[in-house]
Amino acid sequence: MKAIRYQWQPTSAEIARAAGVAVDEVVRFDQNTSPFGTEWAREVVASGAASLNDYPAADYRTLREAAAAAWGLQPQQVVPGAGVDELIILCARAFLTARDRAVAPSPTYSLYQIATVQVGAGYEEVPGAAPDFAMPLDEVVAAARDAALVWLCAPTNPTGRLISADAVAAVVAACDGLVVIDAAYAEFSGDDWAPWVDRHDNVIVLRTLSKAYGLAGARVGLAMAHPAIIDALDAIRPPGSLSRLSTDLAIDALRSQDRMRRTVDAIVTERAALAERLAGLGLRVLPSATNFLLCEVGPEAHQVADSLMRRALVVRTYAAGGPLGDYLRFTVRTAPEHDRLVDTLEQILP
Amino acid sequence: MKAIRYQWQPTSAEIARAAGVAVDEVVRFDQNTSPFGTEWAREVVASGAASLNDYPAADYRTLREAAAAAWGLQPQQVVPGAGVDELIILCARAFLTARDRAVAPSPTYSLYQIATVQVGAGYEEVPGAAPDFAMPLDEVVAAARDAALVWLCAPTNPTGRLISADAVAAVVAACDGLVVIDAAYAEFSGDDWAPWVDRHDNVIVLRTLSKAYGLAGARVGLAMAHPAIIDALDAIRPPGSLSRLSTDLAIDALRSQDRMRRTVDAIVTERAALAERLAGLGLRVLPSATNFLLCEVGPEAHQVADSLMRRALVVRTYAAGGPLGDYLRFTVRTAPEHDRLVDTLEQILP
Repeated sequence: MKAIRYQWQPTSAEIARAAGVAVDEVVRFDQNTSPFGTEWAREVVASGAASLNDYPAADYRTLREAAAAAWGLQPQQVVPGAGVDELIILCARAFLTARDRAVAPSPTYSLYQIATVQVGAGYEEVPGAAPDFAMPLDEVVAAARDAALVWLCAPTNPTGRLISADAVAAVVAACDGLVVIDAAYAEFSGDDWAPWVDRHDNVIVLRTLSKAYGLAGARVGLAMAHPAIIDALDAIRPPGSLSRLSTDLAIDALRSQDRMRRTVDAIVTERAALAERLAGLGLRVLPSATNFLLCEVGPEAHQVADSLMRRALVVRTYAAGGPLGDYLRFTVRTAPEHDRLVDTLEQILP
Repeated sequence: MKAIRYQWQPTSAEIARAAGVAVDEVVRFDQNTSPFGTEWAREVVASGAASLNDYPAADYRTLREAAAAAWGLQPQQVVPGAGVDELIILCARAFLTARDRAVAPSPTYSLYQIATVQVGAGYEEVPGAAPDFAMPLDEVVAAARDAALVWLCAPTNPTGRLISADAVAAVVAACDGLVVIDAAYAEFSGDDWAPWVDRHDNVIVLRTLSKAYGLAGARVGLAMAHPAIIDALDAIRPPGSLSRLSTDLAIDALRSQDRMRRTVDAIVTERAALAERLAGLGLRVLPSATNFLLCEVGPEAHQVADSLMRRALVVRTYAAGGPLGDYLRFTVRTAPEHDRLVDTLEQILP
């Protein structure tokens, strides 16, 4: 049994109970999901609901084809997972052993460390420094040289920073092992990492349908890579971790790129507006290429988060005393929700 | 990278293509799923479909409560997974290391070996012998003594045999490690392993919603065990492998025990009828406590399966030359589907 474990986010039901409000008054500024409901999904799930007695097709062929078509690849360059989280864990299980070392610039998504440590491999963080937490490229390149795997979140959660194509290219060129580009937020930055899969046989690109595609509840992620890498992931993935309905939803979402682009446009517009208002409250707002804003709040960051939580507004905090202990992360949502957030912050900020 | 890998079943789309028929003419006698559609699910998924932009609640609290209520346990004795397959893999990852050995009476479900070998542990099969493949209890007890984990499929896939409570008790008493009772087919035998979780702190009971509950397409399994075991599984499970819709469907299924019982009653009735008809064709039909029938067909078993497949009737075969090479396994389905199967068998059996 491993010492490291997942930290659940508090559920909306728990938060509502603690705040003494109805659950639909809770607003999640902590999960980086889309604020837009999925009315369009009603029709999609209605057609599949009556035949759930059958297993999904184990090869998920139609989903692979839809993803390949959306991203300009071949189906054999794609494999789906029950969220990017499952794919991150599969990457660690397929490509890391107890003799290996994985590298990640930090701060970054916490699951990379958990997945690495769970298979007994070493995990080395290369920290970026305040105030902007830029990736220290030379150090990352040096650390990548004899690493079995590099975890790159591009753009980066939780900082919101872009990682330039040149920087990623330098890491890919230096690394003898694999480079996992977690592109969970790439739609918000306009990055397109898919072509890298054609050019490099040591690159795995991860995409999620939980953010720009607005389908966090369906739990679908996709890995793109050279067919040999995809085959290795296929060999160890559980045969049916995606439900039939999630599969149908994912196919519809991938074939509806316009819907995704409308979501992204709305979020990018609101991102600028929210950044300005938060800056107006005296917070230092880091530039964002994602659907969230990391803000330096100061030593009272946790207190502010607690006060917001009591009003059913949930924001993301970081370990006190750590490099982001004084920061809060806010998901970009809708203008009325931002009004509520900013009005509340005005009342409670010291 | 590990040598052992999952074998996908051919998809219905592939079979239809090869047989030159429409996909809805394919009948899966190979997957041990329910033949009954899930009209009832339409209403369940309609209410959740519009809010798929939010993640499922990571603690799956309501689902745990529904499972605990159905099976007479406490919520902290239950954890859900994306199918029993995910839970089997989590059990191996949580409780087996490269220094350990796992034991399973055989023939049995193939994923136990895959999950064991994937974490580098040793896998020891204790084979039952033809003609009935009964579990050799003394040998299993002896092998269990210093095993880290025993995989018991009760009743057993693929033989359909009951394992008596006395036999399981002997294994549990002998084993210093954990005993995983995979009760995927227990509803068809009337077994109730849940109380064992209260009595033993080294027993894990696995239940699936894919068989008697008729929800294979939703991919939901549940593990029941002492809270300390559940906590260890919680610590390494991906936080959100079940979609919101699968969660809602599972809750509804668990609260609708009558629906499950009607399915089981129908299958058990048809099981006797199908067994009689297959025996009438000259096949040796093993007694079944499940929703499938294992039949000794003879050296031409694979040929028979191929002929059936060309007529879009899919049955389960086993490695030629292996102990079940001369056998076929038939899922119990509906009377009209049995008519089609038996009529076709009459034409093609030598």
